[in-house]
Amino acid sequence: MSVLVTNIGELVTNDPALGEGPLGILTDAALVAEEGRVAWVGPSTRAPAADYGLDVAGAAVIPGFVDSHTHLVFAGDRVDEFEARMRGVPYTGGGIVTTVAATRTADDATLRANLARLVIEARRQGTTTIEIKSGYGLTVADEERSLRLAREATPETTFLGAHVVPPEYAGRTEEYVALVTGPMLAAAAPHARWVDVFCERGAFDVDAARTVLRAGLAAGLTPRVHANQLGPGPGVALAVEVGAASADHCTHLSGQDIDALAGSDTVATLLPGAEFSTRSPYPDARRLLDAGVTVALASDANPGSSYTTSMPFCIALAVREMRMTPGEALWAATAGGAAALRRDDVGRLTPGARADLAVLDAPSYRHLAYRPGVPLIRTVLIGGEPL
Amino acid sequence: MSVLVTNIGELVTNDPALGEGPLGILTDAALVAEEGRVAWVGPSTRAPAADYGLDVAGAAVIPGFVDSHTHLVFAGDRVDEFEARMRGVPYTGGGIVTTVAATRTADDATLRANLARLVIEARRQGTTTIEIKSGYGLTVADEERSLRLAREATPETTFLGAHVVPPEYAGRTEEYVALVTGPMLAAAAPHARWVDVFCERGAFDVDAARTVLRAGLAAGLTPRVHANQLGPGPGVALAVEVGAASADHCTHLSGQDIDALAGSDTVATLLPGAEFSTRSPYPDARRLLDAGVTVALASDANPGSSYTTSMPFCIALAVREMRMTPGEALWAATAGGAAALRRDDVGRLTPGARADLAVLDAPSYRHLAYRPGVPLIRTVLIGGEPL
Repeated sequence: MSVLVTNIGELVTNDPALGEGPLGILTDAALVAEEGRVAWVGPSTRAPAADYGLDVAGAAVIPGFVDSHTHLVFAGDRVDEFEARMRGVPYTGGGIVTTVAATRTADDATLRANLARLVIEARRQGTTTIEIKSGYGLTVADEERSLRLAREATPETTFLGAHVVPPEYAGRTEEYVALVTGPMLAAAAPHARWVDVFCERGAFDVDAARTVLRAGLAAGLTPRVHANQLGPGPGVALAVEVGAASADHCTHLSGQDIDALAGSDTVATLLPGAEFSTRSPYPDARRLLDAGVTVALASDANPGSSYTTSMPFCIALAVREMRMTPGEALWAATAGGAAALRRDDVGRLTPGARADLAVLDAPSYRHLAYRPGVPLIRTVLIGGEPL
Repeated sequence: MSVLVTNIGELVTNDPALGEGPLGILTDAALVAEEGRVAWVGPSTRAPAADYGLDVAGAAVIPGFVDSHTHLVFAGDRVDEFEARMRGVPYTGGGIVTTVAATRTADDATLRANLARLVIEARRQGTTTIEIKSGYGLTVADEERSLRLAREATPETTFLGAHVVPPEYAGRTEEYVALVTGPMLAAAAPHARWVDVFCERGAFDVDAARTVLRAGLAAGLTPRVHANQLGPGPGVALAVEVGAASADHCTHLSGQDIDALAGSDTVATLLPGAEFSTRSPYPDARRLLDAGVTVALASDANPGSSYTTSMPFCIALAVREMRMTPGEALWAATAGGAAALRRDDVGRLTPGARADLAVLDAPSYRHLAYRPGVPLIRTVLIGGEPL
């Protein structure tokens, strides 16, 4: 089956060889999808024939978003904790362990339904590739099933057994790390592509984090790291050291961290939804971009610190709060996310890439930042098929 | 025709006599709409019969948003100006006069189509009552037609001939005020309920603003004022002096301004979308609320400083940036907006009020702030009819 998308007012290809500027923009363009892939892009007037036509009447078309950081396998919510945090009042019993408890007691059907609801919600907002982490199970069986369920939704699954030390291992971090790197990893690895660790004061120190990532590597997984979110620390340096695909958060960076990222293949993934929902300072995206670091934007969708699946919202925050240009923000939310997942078949609309795209209710991608909060995703194609 | 909305997990009535807390919340509730009005609210188990049923399966139901401040009659957009502002680079030729020029040259069909698009967009996001201002015509004919077109969409139309002094009157503010209060007002008044003025340094000083508002009053219109947006000034005091329904923006207030508002029937309407999109400091909502001022939230939807129609986005900003509680923000976006429009038939779901409501894709209204950017409006009823 082939589909011709025509009358595209502004087509973002993310390939500078195909169009104008770093986003490779074509105007008055068309795109042909064939067997799930982009077969052709070019001027509307020269478009070849196809089985089906989709006239978008001057709208902008962008690559589908690549959301490279989510935590969508969980049960329950933490709205009370959110409200207390926003009011600035103390709240006991909150945090990741609340979601761990709810997730462990939920049955598969409950977890699957919640996950499916959120994945559909993300797709409707233009996300066509999504990474999903475990990390609310924290037992061998619960991490295994979290990844098994995540794998039903995406190939980009991440084993995050080292999210926090669960209450039953309080004060016994070494024993918990042995569990994570032993039987838990063995159960998780068949369902995972990536291994991740929360390297932060109060979670896992650099030695524990290194142990987890190396074990993951040995099991065939590629590392990514939750790094430097709450304060300065060794997370980013560790990410670069182990060749992680991405260091995520990057809110508190030293000059050395930035130099290390700039000289590496490790992407800096920024998650401004978390800073928004925790009323925290935003990462310094300009410093990273100006140093030549590859930057991705992702949602960090999770029920505690960033319960949003909206990549357009993250783009609006990136522009308003992190001084990224609308073009840098769109690139980071598409091609940047693809780089953070080491994918060259998504995040761009070039011949051979997957025909994953979003048609906007707007004449330009810049409206994603210019029109914050407005649902501007009109139509989504995934592998050339309408959502 | 009657409709029974049932299985409401959380029903916000905004009537403390009907339910819990200042929002008058009922759980496991139902609502009956009859001939466009709320006929009954109460426990699901005691709901009377109706012609049609809408089972919302545990979702939250809230009064439709009352967006009491928009500028939706215009042509063109100002995305280049937005991008330049976000980059922090100088941009000449921007501002309101750009939109005035585009609006004057547009034909009625163009203006009507753009307005209809934006009103539909707002309704899909749960806005069921909307105020629309003129102010991009600034000639007798263009203000008249702006209000005529706005009136096709809403009864809440506002004459804002005193938005800025148009270029052809540069240096002749007095003459322009004479035009506004003379033939322009005469042409506008039949299509308007309200009169508004931008009382700010660089726009209209307090004497000019008073002249405009008094003339509007004499023509049967009720005042509202753009006040204290860009700096301290006499706008709020003037609003209280003339008995305005609302002083809008209120970003830079003195203690006297707050006392004046607290002792008056004038609502303080906060427009955080404007601060978001202009990267400006937010109003101090807490100071207003703690002083007992009635606060409304509105979108300020316009192509220059706040091109959003999303009241959920404004609620998320109000909570994150202005430290309103989720409950205060929802009240301000519904009952507060109704107060700012001096309406008692909207902004609440009590017997006799209009059956204007939104069903959320969430179990609680608090998710509007907890899940920023996510389109959570599932179903909208306006006068008991599905959108």
